[in-house]
Order: sequence, then structure tokens, then C-alpha cells
Amino acid sequence: MNQSKIDMSKPVAVVGAGLVGAGWAIAFARAGLSVRVYDANARVASEAIPWAGEQLSALYRHGLIAEPPENVKARLVIAHSLEEAIEGAAYVQESVLERVEIKRKLMTDIDAVSDANIIIGSSSSGIQASMFANDLSISPRVLIAHPVNPPYLVPVVELVPSTQTSQETIQFADTFMQAIGQSVVHVRKEIEGFVLNRLQAALLREAWALQRDGIATCEDIDKTVRDGLGWRWSFMGPFETIDLNAPGGVADYANRLGPLYHSIARSRVDDGPWDTELIGRVEQDRRQHLSAADLGRRREWRDERLMEFAVERSKAGPR
Amino acid sequence: MNQSKIDMSKPVAVVGAGLVGAGWAIAFARAGLSVRVYDANARVASEAIPWAGEQLSALYRHGLIAEPPENVKARLVIAHSLEEAIEGAAYVQESVLERVEIKRKLMTDIDAVSDANIIIGSSSSGIQASMFANDLSISPRVLIAHPVNPPYLVPVVELVPSTQTSQETIQFADTFMQAIGQSVVHVRKEIEGFVLNRLQAALLREAWALQRDGIATCEDIDKTVRDGLGWRWSFMGPFETIDLNAPGGVADYANRLGPLYHSIARSRVDDGPWDTELIGRVEQDRRQHLSAADLGRRREWRDERLMEFAVERSKAGPR
Repeated sequence: MNQSKIDMSKPVAVVGAGLVGAGWAIAFARAGLSVRVYDANARVASEAIPWAGEQLSALYRHGLIAEPPENVKARLVIAHSLEEAIEGAAYVQESVLERVEIKRKLMTDIDAVSDANIIIGSSSSGIQASMFANDLSISPRVLIAHPVNPPYLVPVVELVPSTQTSQETIQFADTFMQAIGQSVVHVRKEIEGFVLNRLQAALLREAWALQRDGIATCEDIDKTVRDGLGWRWSFMGPFETIDLNAPGGVADYANRLGPLYHSIARSRVDDGPWDTELIGRVEQDRRQHLSAADLGRRREWRDERLMEFAVERSKAGPR
Repeated sequence: MNQSKIDMSKPVAVVGAGLVGAGWAIAFARAGLSVRVYDANARVASEAIPWAGEQLSALYRHGLIAEPPENVKARLVIAHSLEEAIEGAAYVQESVLERVEIKRKLMTDIDAVSDANIIIGSSSSGIQASMFANDLSISPRVLIAHPVNPPYLVPVVELVPSTQTSQETIQFADTFMQAIGQSVVHVRKEIEGFVLNRLQAALLREAWALQRDGIATCEDIDKTVRDGLGWRWSFMGPFETIDLNAPGGVADYANRLGPLYHSIARSRVDDGPWDTELIGRVEQDRRQHLSAADLGRRREWRDERLMEFAVERSKAGPR
């Protein structure tokens, strides 16, 4: 397969049409692709289309798509069987439930009906592809393509091969994802949590420990990030940040601050799981700032802010 | 001291006029305060003023200050001695070199010349106040006020009491910092790295380990943050992010993902310091994306982006 030749006239399939799958459908349709939307539960697939229409209208309102939303929505078509979804498709994005036996069953089903060229990306956020996609004829053509929700707003996608994924499949997915406007991260070896959730886990581990030990409240820890650390991380990563934060660059920074960071790391070697009592305390702390009844309204606020962020990002100059 | 009565007509003093001190001077002057700028090295103080003038012009160009920059700059006055700097001042921001004996010497000097009301904030980014500010008559009035650089753009400030800091001093610093527009984080017990650098350390620890183990390149790890995790963290913190990321809020999220995060945490219990070989590899990886000769130019790009971010933040609706 030649990575420079992605045939954008071929349809793609979304299998599993919950929040993640429907989000992918929007990202694909926005890029001009015809999208077959399939879910084993027909009601889920049929609800995905009007929901996608609402999101497309919001994107249009924010100037994030130029085409009238109904035109984009018209490229989303419900498929009534797995076979109908993937027949002639160039790519399948799998977004079924995060359970290894469900993903394995789907891979076996796809294996039974797909042709020899289709590439399959899995939205798995933690389960490694080798645990459900190996030893089938499609195995070389399956990899993880893990998005952040929603993928039509937050561009990053982690590509993670299984032990049997071919180099051509990685190249295809890289080219395809870039063609639809995603930002591709290559995770070169399978590892629990991949890169994104491992980085998030590391920060959360420290955040929860600080709250547990009475060092700071949830709200003060949140402020530290949203009014401090998060500013740079919103347009540079952690390595570029420290590379620019010492006169001689990253090595200079590491020589100066490495001992402090190692000392901090040594203070977190075995702090155990988040137990019920700690979860209860964090819950109570958060509820002082946001009542459970307001979670839904606040999610709408978050989604609006993400759209505003996407607008600013699209206006920003070259990196 | 009544926290509702901060006398903004009283001058403040900046002691130590390097990058951090000069940055504070801008934040204070922008808020309308008269600022005495003192450095034991007279040349450093005299260079700080024109540098501040340039930054003020940039702030004005971006619409981040309404007043003509020369008016703000006119509130910065060089003091020729420590005594002259702090005479009659309401607040001193200490930003001398990050070495415990230098900070201790300064506290002893301030103790010798200050009156009984002055409050002293230290920009220390890691050394705890109890290590240099205790057992003096000023001790109840000293605390850490740790900024992110530059404090006139990134609003967070960590307030950390020593074991001898009074409650009134914490209240004064809280009110004062909010009055000049900073976002106050209370670190309730002294801990190495406070909150901000501990969170950064946790993320960097994982980032460096992923690079070391060949899981991902520096650039791909950076992308994961700047095109993914960093979007939410730029306007929410980690706790609000997960609170909104499960139907039932933070406890629901913790019950679902806690085991994965604990498993990830267990995989990083003793990964040692960043050694010379690893630092060399990370340096080489970064230099493929940014040559050492371009570090300065890239820092200017970063500062422009931070200003653009501050503009967007100032336009964003209520939280």
C-alpha cells in the first residue's frame, strides 16, 4: 500500500456508534468522506445521526466548518449490518465497548466478512490490540487509533500497533489520520494506558496524593494547572516547555532540576490505590464547587470552551 | 491586619531584579502600585527598568494593559539600598538567587531594617521558607509566593507558609495577590516542590521514562499534551476534567479508572535519576526539532503565544 495514495472517494465505516464512534463519524464526514454508521443496537446508530447534526450545527456556528452542516450530515448513512458497513470501505473505526471479549468478537466478525485491503483502527483507550486482534487474517491490518473525546475537536490520535500490525498499516493510518486533520502520535511499543493516559495518570496520581495529604484542595490543585502549568501545555508539550526554560536548553534544565525531580519521584513510590474513603473525600471536595445536579450543564460549558479553544488554535500562526 | 484593607497607595519593593523580580515589578506596577526595584548588583536593577519597558509595550500592543506603557513604567523606581527599598513599603517580593544561604542572609538583613508591619513574599520555587526565614522578628510575616514566569502573564501564585508564618500574613498575601490580579493557590503544608512543580515533576517523570524506554519520541509526547491533554488543562484543572468525564462525576470516574491508574503507578516505583546518557539522548531528540541556535528565537515565539493566550483568557466568559 502506497502511503501517498489514500483514496478519499472510498467510504469509511464507524462500528459502535456511542459517543466515541459518533464523534469519529463527525471527524470523517467533515473531511469529505462518506461514512457508514453501524451499531449492533440499531437504536444507538439511529440516535447518533441527529446528535451528530447538532454537533455539526455548533461547529458551523463557531466557524469550525465552512460547509453547511446539513451537507456534512448527509454523508452519514446508517448501515444495517456489519457487512453492509464495511463492504468496499477503505477504513473501519471500531468504537465498541471497552471489553476485551467484545472487541475480540468484533474482530472475528470483521475477519469473516472483510476483504484483504481494509484497515481497522480501534478506539481502545487502554486494552492493547494484541489482546484482541491477533492470529486472524486481518491482524496485520489492525491497530489502535485512540482519540481524545471528542475527536472532531481535540486533534490528537495515538496509533499503537499490535505485535502483528504491519508497517504498511501504520503508514496508512498515519497518512489517513493526517489527511482528515488529526495530530498523529506514534506509540512504538504496546504499554498499558499508551502515552496519553499514562501522562494523565502520572499527574492525577500526584494530584490525588496532594489532596489526600491535606497539602491542597481539589480547587487549588485545579487552579495550579488551569492558571499556570496548563498555559504552556496548551501549545507546547512538556519537553519543549523545559527546553525553553533553561538558557542551555533541555540538558541544562535536566542538570539543574533533575535532582529535585528525582527527589520528588522518590517520595511517590508506593501510595496505594484510591480507596473508598479517599474517593469520598475528593467527591465531597469537588461537590463544594459543582453540585452533582450541575454536571450536565457544566459539560455543555466545557464543550463550548473546547470549541472556542479550537477556533483560537485554528487562527494561531505556524508552530 | 484586616484583610479587607489593603492600602494600594503604599509602595511595594522588589528585591532581586533578575527575570523573576523584574516580572513581578511589572505585575505590581500594572496594578497601579509604586514599585521600588532593588538589586545588590546595581547594574541588574538598572537593566531591569528598560527591559520592563519593552514588556509593557508588548502588553500594550496586545491590549493587555489599557494605560500607556510609559505611565506604568514611570511607577518603577530604582532603590539604591535595601533600606531605601523597603522603607514604608507594604509588601516586599524577594526574588534573589535560589540558594538557602543567600535567602537567609537577605531575611536577616530585612529583619534589621524593616518595621513591624511589612509582609515579605519569597519567589522561592523549591526551598521551603522554614529553611531560611525562621526565628527572626519578621518570621510571622514571611511566606512563599511562588509565581510562574512571567507573573504578569501567567496568573498562578502559590502561597506557602513556613512553620512560623501567621494566619494574618497568609490572609494579607491572599487579598493582596488577588487585588493585583493573580490566581492564588494555598499550599497548606510545606512540601518539596510545592504543588506546581510536583505536578510538573510527575508528568515529566513519566514523559522521560517513555522516551527512555523507546515508547515515544519527545515530539510525539509533546503532541500528546499540546494537541490533547493540554486543551482541557488550559481552562480546567485535572479534577474538574475527570469530574466531567464520567456520567456520575469524579467518584464514578475514580471507580472506573482507578484500577488502571494504580496499575500504571505501580509500573513507576523506582526508575532512578535522569542519568547523563538519558539526558544526552533527550537533548539529541529535541535538537532534531529545534537547534540550539534557535532557542532564543523560539523563546520569543513562546512569549508571543503566552500573550495571545492571555488575551483569549481575558475575553473568555465567566468560569
